[in-house]
Amino acid sequence: MSDGEFDLIDAIADALGPVASGTGVTLGPGDDAAVLAVPPQHELVVSTDTLVAGRHYPPAAAAANIGYRSMAVATSDLAAMGADPAWALVSLTAPALTTSWARDFVAGIRTAAEAFSLKVVGGNLAQGPHSVTVAVHGHVPAGTALRRSGARQGDHLYVSGNIGGAGLALEDHDALAACPPDNIPPDSALARYWRPQPRLGLGTRLRGIATAAIDVSDGVAAEVDHLCAASRLQATLQLARLPLFAGAEAGAAVVAGDDYELVFTAPPSAEAAVTAAARAADVPVVAIGTMQAAMPWRGCWDAAIDGQRGYRHF
Amino acid sequence: MSDGEFDLIDAIADALGPVASGTGVTLGPGDDAAVLAVPPQHELVVSTDTLVAGRHYPPAAAAANIGYRSMAVATSDLAAMGADPAWALVSLTAPALTTSWARDFVAGIRTAAEAFSLKVVGGNLAQGPHSVTVAVHGHVPAGTALRRSGARQGDHLYVSGNIGGAGLALEDHDALAACPPDNIPPDSALARYWRPQPRLGLGTRLRGIATAAIDVSDGVAAEVDHLCAASRLQATLQLARLPLFAGAEAGAAVVAGDDYELVFTAPPSAEAAVTAAARAADVPVVAIGTMQAAMPWRGCWDAAIDGQRGYRHF
Repeated sequence: MSDGEFDLIDAIADALGPVASGTGVTLGPGDDAAVLAVPPQHELVVSTDTLVAGRHYPPAAAAANIGYRSMAVATSDLAAMGADPAWALVSLTAPALTTSWARDFVAGIRTAAEAFSLKVVGGNLAQGPHSVTVAVHGHVPAGTALRRSGARQGDHLYVSGNIGGAGLALEDHDALAACPPDNIPPDSALARYWRPQPRLGLGTRLRGIATAAIDVSDGVAAEVDHLCAASRLQATLQLARLPLFAGAEAGAAVVAGDDYELVFTAPPSAEAAVTAAARAADVPVVAIGTMQAAMPWRGCWDAAIDGQRGYRHF
Repeated sequence: MSDGEFDLIDAIADALGPVASGTGVTLGPGDDAAVLAVPPQHELVVSTDTLVAGRHYPPAAAAANIGYRSMAVATSDLAAMGADPAWALVSLTAPALTTSWARDFVAGIRTAAEAFSLKVVGGNLAQGPHSVTVAVHGHVPAGTALRRSGARQGDHLYVSGNIGGAGLALEDHDALAACPPDNIPPDSALARYWRPQPRLGLGTRLRGIATAAIDVSDGVAAEVDHLCAASRLQATLQLARLPLFAGAEAGAAVVAGDDYELVFTAPPSAEAAVTAAARAADVPVVAIGTMQAAMPWRGCWDAAIDGQRGYRHF
């Protein structure tokens, strides 16, 4: 074939290398579909996210950064479900595609796949305005997936890691766009934005411990509201307890998105188990509130929070 | 929440109705991810396709048509693998979204989901230039998925249904864009384009019979080439045997895309089984060639075929 697309697809398959095959992959990229083996007695967990140039990332950003972040954002939903990561489909739409851009993009995808233990088993390539859609697949022992809806009255509400770093990075669009993909200082705001760390290790360890969980893509305030609505409870929350990224201000951080931490609930009796899970996952967690049987079903903060509650896509 | 996006997502979930839950769906739309049960001793089959406005469909086309076709195009890959259809994730990117457009789009998605026995278990909504990405999930008894690579020397090469209808529809862009979603004449070129019928019933019945299969998205000539390359064989083909849509011309039809028929191979000894499978699936199939151990690994036609070999995405 002299067809540019198929050459490019071959080049992408080559660049994916070992992340295109392995455990559970009966048939990887290159056929009409991938064939995969979910472990016996496990349920499949699937989610998808689309990132659009100019809306979810700067159009001029480094291809490797776009690739990595697309994978991380989608994978965070597996962490929120307590799922073990398994497979990803990566769909790239681009107006035109040079081999070097594609190679860099795939390098970002591959680095993320290795970091998150995902196999890239397929995807799609289309011509059009720049966007990336990643569908992720994981699995849980049947019946153990964490949901938004399981919180109970009296549960503590926890937040992992720290909040507000990605929001700080978003304040400097030029730096975000210009950020080279290599050597991003690990604890910088730029790293929080371009190298989010889905809390997979924490999520899997919270199976059987947490009563509900959600990841922080649209800001803690909005995610708490979602969890409350799904669980039909109210959360009373202490803003001063919110774990902050160095330099972030609580009232702004709580409505800033893109941190990809976990918000979860667990009963007071599980406090030691939560602490042990967090230590084993090497991620700090902090209780910032309590679930109440009250209306409205949303988060009630003890201090003013800024602006709109979470990112609005429309 | 007064947030427009979440209201819209609720409206979409309502509009999906029964196609958002059912067999194998432990947890459907509305959480961070769906939780699904693959039947024991079965493998998961996954694929994804993106359709971009202005490239894969007219931007002004009816929302229900766009929704239906997006589902059909993706589902055709399940048919090519011989998979039983199960679940879909639908990701819509749109510059702005009215409730009525969204309702019509979801109606198209729902009609297709019902026609193809798919449950819509999640997706994504993003603001940006119009495009739709559908990820489909099916399953096969372990080890029975049809691949492109399994053809053997001496196998017959078959084509299902008829070819060239979608290509004819594409010749009249205005009619394509103006086509109302209801009452499209069932055997018209417009129906072939807007209501492709993934050959799911044929695909599943070809498990254990066909040695290789691929669906016709980019034209029979291109798909035969892919099958040959994957199987490391050459196909010798008789253009006059190509089953044609009424009014289509063979030399053009063979390189026209979007028909979503199946191209597959089977040994001469399986001829009766192929005929029985086609009859049971109520889809005609015709042998148009034979697989040979020869180079180059591609289709060799006995008559001139038009233009480039298949649709090029870049």
